[in-house]
Amino acid sequence: MQDTEITRRLAAWTVGLDAEAIPETVRAEGVRTFVNWLGCAVGGARHETVDRALAAALPFSGPARAQVIGRAERVDELHAALLNGISSHVLDYDDTHLKTIIHPAGPVASAILAVAETRAVSGRDFLTALIAGIEVECRIGNSVYPDHYDRGWHITGTAGVFGAAAATGRLLGLTELQMTWAFGIAATQSSGFREMFGTMCKSFHPGRAAQNGAMAAFLAKADFDSSLRAIEAPRGWANVLSTKQDYGEIVDGLGTRWEAGLNTYKPFACGIVIHPAIDGCQQLRDKLGARVADIASVELRTHPLVLELTGKTAPTTGLEGKFSVFHSAATALLYGDGSPTAFTDERVRDPAVMALRDKVKATSDGSVHEDAVHIAVTLTDGERIELHVPHAIGSLERPLSNEAIGEKFVTQSVPVIGEVASRALLAMGWALESSDDVAAIASASAAQA
Amino acid sequence: MQDTEITRRLAAWTVGLDAEAIPETVRAEGVRTFVNWLGCAVGGARHETVDRALAAALPFSGPARAQVIGRAERVDELHAALLNGISSHVLDYDDTHLKTIIHPAGPVASAILAVAETRAVSGRDFLTALIAGIEVECRIGNSVYPDHYDRGWHITGTAGVFGAAAATGRLLGLTELQMTWAFGIAATQSSGFREMFGTMCKSFHPGRAAQNGAMAAFLAKADFDSSLRAIEAPRGWANVLSTKQDYGEIVDGLGTRWEAGLNTYKPFACGIVIHPAIDGCQQLRDKLGARVADIASVELRTHPLVLELTGKTAPTTGLEGKFSVFHSAATALLYGDGSPTAFTDERVRDPAVMALRDKVKATSDGSVHEDAVHIAVTLTDGERIELHVPHAIGSLERPLSNEAIGEKFVTQSVPVIGEVASRALLAMGWALESSDDVAAIASASAAQA
Repeated sequence: MQDTEITRRLAAWTVGLDAEAIPETVRAEGVRTFVNWLGCAVGGARHETVDRALAAALPFSGPARAQVIGRAERVDELHAALLNGISSHVLDYDDTHLKTIIHPAGPVASAILAVAETRAVSGRDFLTALIAGIEVECRIGNSVYPDHYDRGWHITGTAGVFGAAAATGRLLGLTELQMTWAFGIAATQSSGFREMFGTMCKSFHPGRAAQNGAMAAFLAKADFDSSLRAIEAPRGWANVLSTKQDYGEIVDGLGTRWEAGLNTYKPFACGIVIHPAIDGCQQLRDKLGARVADIASVELRTHPLVLELTGKTAPTTGLEGKFSVFHSAATALLYGDGSPTAFTDERVRDPAVMALRDKVKATSDGSVHEDAVHIAVTLTDGERIELHVPHAIGSLERPLSNEAIGEKFVTQSVPVIGEVASRALLAMGWALESSDDVAAIASASAAQA
Repeated sequence: MQDTEITRRLAAWTVGLDAEAIPETVRAEGVRTFVNWLGCAVGGARHETVDRALAAALPFSGPARAQVIGRAERVDELHAALLNGISSHVLDYDDTHLKTIIHPAGPVASAILAVAETRAVSGRDFLTALIAGIEVECRIGNSVYPDHYDRGWHITGTAGVFGAAAATGRLLGLTELQMTWAFGIAATQSSGFREMFGTMCKSFHPGRAAQNGAMAAFLAKADFDSSLRAIEAPRGWANVLSTKQDYGEIVDGLGTRWEAGLNTYKPFACGIVIHPAIDGCQQLRDKLGARVADIASVELRTHPLVLELTGKTAPTTGLEGKFSVFHSAATALLYGDGSPTAFTDERVRDPAVMALRDKVKATSDGSVHEDAVHIAVTLTDGERIELHVPHAIGSLERPLSNEAIGEKFVTQSVPVIGEVASRALLAMGWALESSDDVAAIASASAAQA
């Protein structure tokens, strides 16, 4: 389609979106997105990446009006957006828009929960802003994916900054013109490389996207102007950062086709490609019971990306364990575990896990879908048990249930803020839409000092 | 050349640079750079772009430790870096590294003068950090120019963030490894589009580059890690943001060939590409005297970038006037003016200027050098007067004298902070190298509240 007023039309839609016009299924997905994000932010709050970012940022913080989730510290809203964006992504456990591999909640929710602490925002308005922000970033992502990602851009950062601007802009009540400027200010700060994967800068990207997108909205609110065609201009975002520009993905079917309804949540704290193997091994564990001890061999037939990305046969650290389908299968069979505790240094060095890991073989098969796996277990008595997972748990076909999202939340947050606070926070998360003032959710996430 | 450890080698040089090893000519150019930057920052301090950015940023400021130059407000160092980077560039009157059209001082000086307010920094160490930062950003710029710029990146922002990280990193005493990380954290924040020219976001770019580059250094100081090959990796900065990568420009002849010695200073408050036209029109005004009123037409034959960048035929605001070679020529012919007063809303709407502007025609000629112009004026009686400017005033061949830099400083700063403060500040600027504590320069730039 033509590149006519794409930025302006997206801004008009963002400003004009009425809560009533969002389908119930999409609103429900928004609540799931929020709960999943909140649990991840608490779960990652004590990671050394957050410790170091906080140590660097704290001397520059403005008034302590916003909570660093899962910790005792309070900082200004923009720094809270940065830090919560980091913690929610640092365990690679957050949500995924599968079409673009964008992790939608980090940039958006991190920005607006912080901003909501300084003004009364109802759960209903918050959810509308969250959905608007996710819709904006995923549509912008769709317009350039995969070329943009292939070039080396970490799309969660580059597209996320627009989502943060959109959602924050709604809370600030921007006019259509101001929202157009906010998108321009966001565009001209868009950044983040895939080269940073495996370093602390990976989770810095959604954090900075949240902070920069929010600042874009505050600047626009102060009538700081920008290009009115920041996305579609010949030297605008889509042309400078991508060889593909499909503007129809941005403006067609706004309010009808909802990208925000297509979010997914990882059941396991590792790359999406080994989810089928972990899922299948958990199912086999349930079938085998005590006979797990009698396993002689495990054969996995997987999509080729599995061995390409997670082919480490002898991981020695928890982080390396995330890149080993062998370790992941073994810990799922022995402990039924795919949560963060499955990827600690201790678990990776567990002799029982190491022994079983060495009995796991994997072969690549181009006919196996990315979210599928074939598994065959042979026991010491010669019995052979086979299992086919056509769609891994957490995929769009087998979405995580609300119960599973809740379990994931609690598993992550209890070690950080304790059982009582975790359960209370989870309940507040599910009740988002009926909240009078979402600032209470942020405060409830605080660890006792 | 090969892409071997480019980032690391640049970091090693930046950390190891000794003040003694910098040639006297380069140090002297560094002082001229600083004085020119300081005058521009004072001169731009009351611009509405700064007013609006400050209004948006003030609620988020940390402790008021650093001066917003030319104003009464004090903010935290990172916000001062942002605001001073904006004010120093907002009049398009700052310095230019002609090979890359980078405006070197904005990102670098704005970062380190602010940071120097919180720790004792001698003028000598400050100047060394300033030169190191400028060397880093200009070399990185050289490695990708012009492809990177042609694609639409505003190189002052995209390369400037490295300069700010380098210079701030020196003040913080980063190790070589930390400086390598700082370059990585800077790289993954690199941003800013040429599409923003003519809007407030243009000067936002050096401001944000100063702020983000400084933050990169503070993060690295806290051991926040990053890629060690952020510039040269297959998915690193140079490959993602450019089709050209000449790494020799970054690491060859470090300490021997000095890009920091090639800085230039604008006599006119607009883009460097229309300097030849203004220079020529001022010369013609001197020749024509009262016959300026009899001009029937003005023909400019210019380098093609002139129309590409400044081809606005009917500007309506002062800011747009800077992107109109037609307005610029008219105001130079009528008033002899290329200073900030030539680019006010009032001047752009001056009927006499508008009438003459419409008589100016410009044609692109690839054989005309960037700092040259051919002008032909035809009077109503048919007389035709031609002028060729081979090198515009302010170019490397016709550099501004220290006296002219001082006059430019005073012309800009007197309306903002008054005659006495301006003269005192100018003297402190020239005496930079013998300063015991450069924080005094920042405080002396303050307007009385």
